[in-house]
Amino acid sequence: MTTTTTPEISTSIVEESNFLKELVLQVRAQDHYGVYRNWKDELVLSNFVVSKEKKSKISVDGDVDAATQLRILCFYRAIAVCIEKETGKLCQVVTDLSHEGFGWALVWTGRLVVLSRTLRDAQRFGYPSLKKLAAQGERLVESGLKNVEKYPDAAEG
Amino acid sequence: MTTTTTPEISTSIVEESNFLKELVLQVRAQDHYGVYRNWKDELVLSNFVVSKEKKSKISVDGDVDAATQLRILCFYRAIAVCIEKETGKLCQVVTDLSHEGFGWALVWTGRLVVLSRTLRDAQRFGYPSLKKLAAQGERLVESGLKNVEKYPDAAEG
Repeated sequence: MTTTTTPEISTSIVEESNFLKELVLQVRAQDHYGVYRNWKDELVLSNFVVSKEKKSKISVDGDVDAATQLRILCFYRAIAVCIEKETGKLCQVVTDLSHEGFGWALVWTGRLVVLSRTLRDAQRFGYPSLKKLAAQGERLVESGLKNVEKYPDAAEG
Repeated sequence: MTTTTTPEISTSIVEESNFLKELVLQVRAQDHYGVYRNWKDELVLSNFVVSKEKKSKISVDGDVDAATQLRILCFYRAIAVCIEKETGKLCQVVTDLSHEGFGWALVWTGRLVVLSRTLRDAQRFGYPSLKKLAAQGERLVESGLKNVEKYPDAAEG
């Protein structure tokens, strides 16, 4: 009996997480030239994984490069879509980054700020593993859903 | 009897409007080299006045230049400060502009979006007169205050 377990397990991380599935869709939506067309989902997300050692080598002195900015936007858009699917409410996203890598990411619906996060050292944006990326995304989705539940009036407003 | 009515009247526009007074402070706060130090308030605000003819001459094809972006930020920050002073609640501002001059300006406090405005043709940001600038600023402050009143829970959240 031959087993091809290893690749199957890696793919299933994305398969098992609604958040990662949305994130893959967000990244693929930006792939205007079809570079990722034949790539596996986990490869599409590989740039979201940044090890501690790699992070320490990324300078936080300069601008946040366009690719990193787009990754941050995809991350919060994926969260917004997950919340949208659960609540049926249209969610908007803004990210506002200064040249020093500081700023805000906001998700809102109606008059409600569903999620607000300050960003720091955005040049180093990334998570140690796909599993941790999924966990963080899902945690933020959860906290957003709680806010929609807690402030229904503002969410409608 | 000599009269110096004309300059007096022009200055009084700023004197009479709390919003314009805050806007002047916002602009002066950015004046790191003291260029505006001896300027009258109305002169400090003169770049916020853009006539219809001038607007039509500004191209909306390219990026929004840094000075215009900063003016837009000052405008919404002045609104935020006015709301802050009335309600005692700390207000945050983000502006998110695409390269095409489209985007969002948001003012929020706690979990409440106090003000959300879509921006279009941001390259042409400006008002026909200081009077109209004051009127628009005050209108937005009013609408923000109404929202804080309407959703006190979210504003606290």
